[in-house]
Amino acid sequence: MAGYFRPNIEAMTGYVPGEQLAQPGIIKLNTNENPYPPSPRVLSAIRAALNASLRLYPEPLSDTLRSAAASVYGVRRENILAGNGSDELLSIIMRCFVGPADRVAMPVPTYSLYDTLITIQDGQRVTFDYAPDFSLPEQLFCEKAAVTFLCNPNSPSGTLVGLEQIDKLARSISGILVVDEAYVDFAESEGASALPLIARLPNLIVLRTFSKSFSLAGMRIGLAFGAEEVIAGMYKVKDSYNLNRLSAVAATAALNDLPWMTRNVRRVQKARSRLSAGLRELGYQVFPSHANFVLAKINGSNLAPVYEALKAQKMLVRYFDVPELRDSLRISVGTPAEVSRLLEALQQIHEGRAAEPFDAAAQGKGDPA
Amino acid sequence: MAGYFRPNIEAMTGYVPGEQLAQPGIIKLNTNENPYPPSPRVLSAIRAALNASLRLYPEPLSDTLRSAAASVYGVRRENILAGNGSDELLSIIMRCFVGPADRVAMPVPTYSLYDTLITIQDGQRVTFDYAPDFSLPEQLFCEKAAVTFLCNPNSPSGTLVGLEQIDKLARSISGILVVDEAYVDFAESEGASALPLIARLPNLIVLRTFSKSFSLAGMRIGLAFGAEEVIAGMYKVKDSYNLNRLSAVAATAALNDLPWMTRNVRRVQKARSRLSAGLRELGYQVFPSHANFVLAKINGSNLAPVYEALKAQKMLVRYFDVPELRDSLRISVGTPAEVSRLLEALQQIHEGRAAEPFDAAAQGKGDPA
Repeated sequence: MAGYFRPNIEAMTGYVPGEQLAQPGIIKLNTNENPYPPSPRVLSAIRAALNASLRLYPEPLSDTLRSAAASVYGVRRENILAGNGSDELLSIIMRCFVGPADRVAMPVPTYSLYDTLITIQDGQRVTFDYAPDFSLPEQLFCEKAAVTFLCNPNSPSGTLVGLEQIDKLARSISGILVVDEAYVDFAESEGASALPLIARLPNLIVLRTFSKSFSLAGMRIGLAFGAEEVIAGMYKVKDSYNLNRLSAVAATAALNDLPWMTRNVRRVQKARSRLSAGLRELGYQVFPSHANFVLAKINGSNLAPVYEALKAQKMLVRYFDVPELRDSLRISVGTPAEVSRLLEALQQIHEGRAAEPFDAAAQGKGDPA
Repeated sequence: MAGYFRPNIEAMTGYVPGEQLAQPGIIKLNTNENPYPPSPRVLSAIRAALNASLRLYPEPLSDTLRSAAASVYGVRRENILAGNGSDELLSIIMRCFVGPADRVAMPVPTYSLYDTLITIQDGQRVTFDYAPDFSLPEQLFCEKAAVTFLCNPNSPSGTLVGLEQIDKLARSISGILVVDEAYVDFAESEGASALPLIARLPNLIVLRTFSKSFSLAGMRIGLAFGAEEVIAGMYKVKDSYNLNRLSAVAATAALNDLPWMTRNVRRVQKARSRLSAGLRELGYQVFPSHANFVLAKINGSNLAPVYEALKAQKMLVRYFDVPELRDSLRISVGTPAEVSRLLEALQQIHEGRAAEPFDAAAQGKGDPA
């Protein structure tokens, strides 16, 4: 590359997203998409916006969407920044708060995109292992990082950290705390969200996405919530027109049809219970999930062969080929029929392999984390 | 802000995009949108994609769009990266090639977003004044910058630098040359694009947008073209799913209906000739424009009052409140009727102000550049 790239970029491997196979018949349980479609009102709203106005730039600050979100989430419009997926919001956060060699802390294992973004920004990654039950490691509270990431509910574990812990964490650290709530709508109980805390914690940023509970992964919409001063600073870094017209319309319409979303969430929660129970019957340890996926583990095994066997049957789940996760599979919660198909397939795989334990030195070809 | 933000972000002013007024009756000639709608085939293609698949992530690498673009532009898919507008592509370029204090060179005046992006990346801005006829300053060829930006056709001047100059520039400098061709489809002659040069210049990146000639500013779509190695490195920095499903579909459909675009370009070129001639009759110096706007100048005047007077008549043009551009207005080329309205309004303004020259100490409230 003749030295054009910065050394950190030159040296890095890019984030590898989960496989996106479009073949018919694939049961896709690898990227935590919602098995149910978006609200018909979302489709109608986009249809109504399909006209000559596409020649015009969108609202630079997505004011219409932010007004709707302010009303739904009980905050002011000035507390909200809309982004091209929460991925873009994460990039904006890194560029705002993390300079070269600045520390970025997080409990692990977690969403591996954070690592990629730290490398791009030439920051310093500081990680602490979650406790075996996925409660927060004590060292995280003592860390002086520019940014601390907490994915809550966490991916890939699906586990949830309580609000008292988040409140304590924000007050203990000196930098910004990002609580990434991509999956919070699927939490088992109400009151899981840290959103109410932004009013009194000046260093808290809460992220939401429309990709999961609202069934709009294809439209790339995320929201960042925080103190007005923090959000105002982040506006300086975002692209001028970062959210296109149709995505803004889709998100606004989705917020205006919350019952559609909550009904789908309840269906996913119900299927999640059955999936978790079925996996436990098959011998898996399943962490209590507050997300639209579960992490299923067989301690000490390498589950790459199970991942491969499922893939051979056109069922995609997520296998992370890193030491701490090779004994686990992350499985998105599908429709009831998909859950049944998956559990049946797993039962057959495990029966077929009874004489051939898969903690052998199997080397999987799964997605890197 | 209690020191949360990096010092460069704390100190900066954000880029201020041109006013987006939605009131009816506004003649909007300030942000270089296309006065004609996108192809009906684009609207149909989006309509056909409006279904349950919005629940699924888009193609991570926008392969369908890139295949269409590769065919239209005569390059390989590996030479193309699709982005959420060329703004995102510019951000990716900065993060790939510019570290703290790295030099970023450009001839000025030009698109002021480059400055914003340099500040965000904590780079060092190195500028050289264009010659009075907007030919390239000689010093640019001797500069050792990590990245050199050339907006071509240039905004706000509309002027075009020839391919021999671009070829020479890319060979003279040691870093990356970005040729931002947002407006190149409006160039007076064929062969203005630097795209054919990417095959033999390893440090050249050419940017295109669908916001101008394709009438899709609302959908945020841009393309970067470059050597395969450069594009592969840029993929590491882009967000995983940076282009939403409908924008990818829109761009693909637009590329499959080039006659619609070229017909609109010809209409704009025709209106641009009449606008330029009319402005010259009113005493303006008008630079030969290869874009869908013109830069109209009255040497030594401050044109803020003219901008304000037009705005009072619901006509928005772009006034840049910086020393080198206060004697100029950038006016997007509208429909023939809009051009007529604007010229009439200007004539009245200039007649009315005959006794009251506007090079008085008028202080405009226009958009900062």
